[in-house]
Amino acid sequence: MTLSYNQVAGRRLDRIAALSDGVFAIAMTLIVFEIRVPDVGPIHSEQDLWNALLGLSPRLVTYLLSFLTLGIFWNGQQTQLNYFAKADRDLTWIQLGFLAAVALMPFSTSLLAEFISFRLALLAYWANIVLLGLLLYAALAYASRGGLLSEDAGSAASALIRRRIVVAQALYAFGALLCVVSTYWSIAFIVLVQLNFAIAPRIPVLSRL
Amino acid sequence: MTLSYNQVAGRRLDRIAALSDGVFAIAMTLIVFEIRVPDVGPIHSEQDLWNALLGLSPRLVTYLLSFLTLGIFWNGQQTQLNYFAKADRDLTWIQLGFLAAVALMPFSTSLLAEFISFRLALLAYWANIVLLGLLLYAALAYASRGGLLSEDAGSAASALIRRRIVVAQALYAFGALLCVVSTYWSIAFIVLVQLNFAIAPRIPVLSRL
Amino acid sequence: MTLSYNQVAGRRLDRIAALSDGVFAIAMTLIVFEIRVPDVGPIHSEQDLWNALLGLSPRLVTYLLSFLTLGIFWNGQQTQLNYFAKADRDLTWIQLGFLAAVALMPFSTSLLAEFISFRLALLAYWANIVLLGLLLYAALAYASRGGLLSEDAGSAASALIRRRIVVAQALYAFGALLCVVSTYWSIAFIVLVQLNFAIAPRIPVLSRL
Amino acid sequence: MTLSYNQVAGRRLDRIAALSDGVFAIAMTLIVFEIRVPDVGPIHSEQDLWNALLGLSPRLVTYLLSFLTLGIFWNGQQTQLNYFAKADRDLTWIQLGFLAAVALMPFSTSLLAEFISFRLALLAYWANIVLLGLLLYAALAYASRGGLLSEDAGSAASALIRRRIVVAQALYAFGALLCVVSTYWSIAFIVLVQLNFAIAPRIPVLSRL
Repeated sequence: MTLSYNQVAGRRLDRIAALSDGVFAIAMTLIVFEIRVPDVGPIHSEQDLWNALLGLSPRLVTYLLSFLTLGIFWNGQQTQLNYFAKADRDLTWIQLGFLAAVALMPFSTSLLAEFISFRLALLAYWANIVLLGLLLYAALAYASRGGLLSEDAGSAASALIRRRIVVAQALYAFGALLCVVSTYWSIAFIVLVQLNFAIAPRIPVLSRL
Repeated sequence: MTLSYNQVAGRRLDRIAALSDGVFAIAMTLIVFEIRVPDVGPIHSEQDLWNALLGLSPRLVTYLLSFLTLGIFWNGQQTQLNYFAKADRDLTWIQLGFLAAVALMPFSTSLLAEFISFRLALLAYWANIVLLGLLLYAALAYASRGGLLSEDAGSAASALIRRRIVVAQALYAFGALLCVVSTYWSIAFIVLVQLNFAIAPRIPVLSRL
Repeated sequence: MTLSYNQVAGRRLDRIAALSDGVFAIAMTLIVFEIRVPDVGPIHSEQDLWNALLGLSPRLVTYLLSFLTLGIFWNGQQTQLNYFAKADRDLTWIQLGFLAAVALMPFSTSLLAEFISFRLALLAYWANIVLLGLLLYAALAYASRGGLLSEDAGSAASALIRRRIVVAQALYAFGALLCVVSTYWSIAFIVLVQLNFAIAPRIPVLSRL
Repeated sequence: MTLSYNQVAGRRLDRIAALSDGVFAIAMTLIVFEIRVPDVGPIHSEQDLWNALLGLSPRLVTYLLSFLTLGIFWNGQQTQLNYFAKADRDLTWIQLGFLAAVALMPFSTSLLAEFISFRLALLAYWANIVLLGLLLYAALAYASRGGLLSEDAGSAASALIRRRIVVAQALYAFGALLCVVSTYWSIAFIVLVQLNFAIAPRIPVLSRL
């Protein structure tokens, strides 16, 4: 028998996409789940409820932050998958590692929301973003080397996406560094970077990112 | 290198559909999750259990309300996607924003169930519906302007769906306004509007909505 | 404009299937979620843990029961969808109603597990099964009447599946009735009926069900 | 009417794949959900938070363990499905049983994390892995016997995958046996076996597994 398991395993890109959509969908929904409805007990008036909802605002900020993060990496992975001609077993495992990092996002988000002024919480969140970027980059690098990219635009797109990951991660690292001043500065900077990536402004210097 | 990231990103309508089905499926299931089984402790007879289950009825009403809301917007987005010929990156982000609003629905539902007589809870719920409508409208308007609609029935369907969104949102706004009288009036009115959209009665004047 | 919203909405069977797979997948996973890991506090030995796990056995029984229920109705809906040539808006809403009943299953399961000797909990669970059966039947009946079935085997399969739903529901109703004796009899009988449907025994008289 | 329900039910491999992707995606995300963010109350400094996060490390280990387990079995099932030409009703139920075992994984993981030094918790976790292996094997054996494999590489691949399952389960059983010494030895050994399966090292003697 000359067939090896490596030859038969992990060849379906569509199932990777389907599993990814599932993991992203759940992560996107669970980060909201952490915004708990206030306890009924101490709330007796509209004013009380208003104050309680205001108290949830850090969680709304971290929700926005994490939804942007997940949206950016969902887009990134989707774009990447479009340029793969096929998968093999190692690529499948890099993708599974990427999904493991996606699945950690609700935890990181909740940790940051609960400890929003702690540098450690911010650095843990940032580590999660770094992990996502690294695995996305690794998947592309592996696919380039292994000849798994599609013929036509594959290699040009791969170089473009990889450069983009490097630029984005440099900006995230700078944002994380800002926690020396204050974690709020870090969060604000990272949200701005993400909005730039999401909204893709037509300001020439920024649109090249 | 003349390829820009905007050209390569966010072009797959089927992955948007798959992610959306995932987010809707989870939101639809989590709104039930908020209906908590009564504590065993104080329940000693069938009668006690009956009373405890009766106490859950506001949650059943908000569950019905939110399932209708999610069903209507799932239908709306699905109908819309059928008329898109392709996606681009900005359209993808409008859709992601729409999904972020879908993911907020379990929170809004739970808030309303817990504070069913509070106007603020009702207005927060309504704000969520408004956000869903706005983003659905924005996606269509953007796709029309950007030439992303399919050739054949695209533009007629787009006009039709957009008009429908406006009518629906006007009715929802009137329903929200009824909370000046009582939040129960608001909920009853919104449920009736939604049943009309779901069941699509053959009463001529209503079926045109 | 002669196009009406009913003509453009809810025509994609594949999205109904995708949403259904999502809702079923979550319901199947959440019914396990209700099996809570015992508290660490009072457990000091392997024997303590063994006893605590034994205490979870009613939840394991209701898990088995509900997984069978969900599996049967997932199969039922899937079989049905294979015989639909197309969907329309009303059929889509019947399917959404069916999914709303699927989403209630984790609640019904948890209620039954928590109050396993209460007739009311058993009847609530049975009501959920009845609702699932009714909506599955309604979808087929509507599709038959509306000409939505596929040409070839559609109508024969529809009659067959509908008869099967009636037989199954009669058996479930008998099982529910057994709660006059004891809810455990009901559960045992329903599990046996479900195993029959799942395993499809070759005993001639049973295989015709 | 000569059509029997067995002939019309459970024939779509793509819906089995979609349901599986959903269940795996949720299980992969829920195993993280068990890593609870520390309580804010007793944490006053970065050092306190660091210590609290360190206290979560057993849960991180069980998360890694379970993600590997789920990844391996997702790969295994995916590979298998690629070699099926069609499904029938019994195969569908074997697959549903497999998914029931997947859905139990978050419970087993949480039990092991909470009682990491208890042999019973480790054996329960191992039982879950055995169940997954058994059902994967059963699906292949049934499909081989029933002529459901695809013509070309089907039977060679089936033999290869089945042998692989047997080898893996033997290694897992040995790992479980190590709990006579210590549950930590078991966990370490199982993680190593899984990393071998995931990373597929090029060391000749290991790559043949």
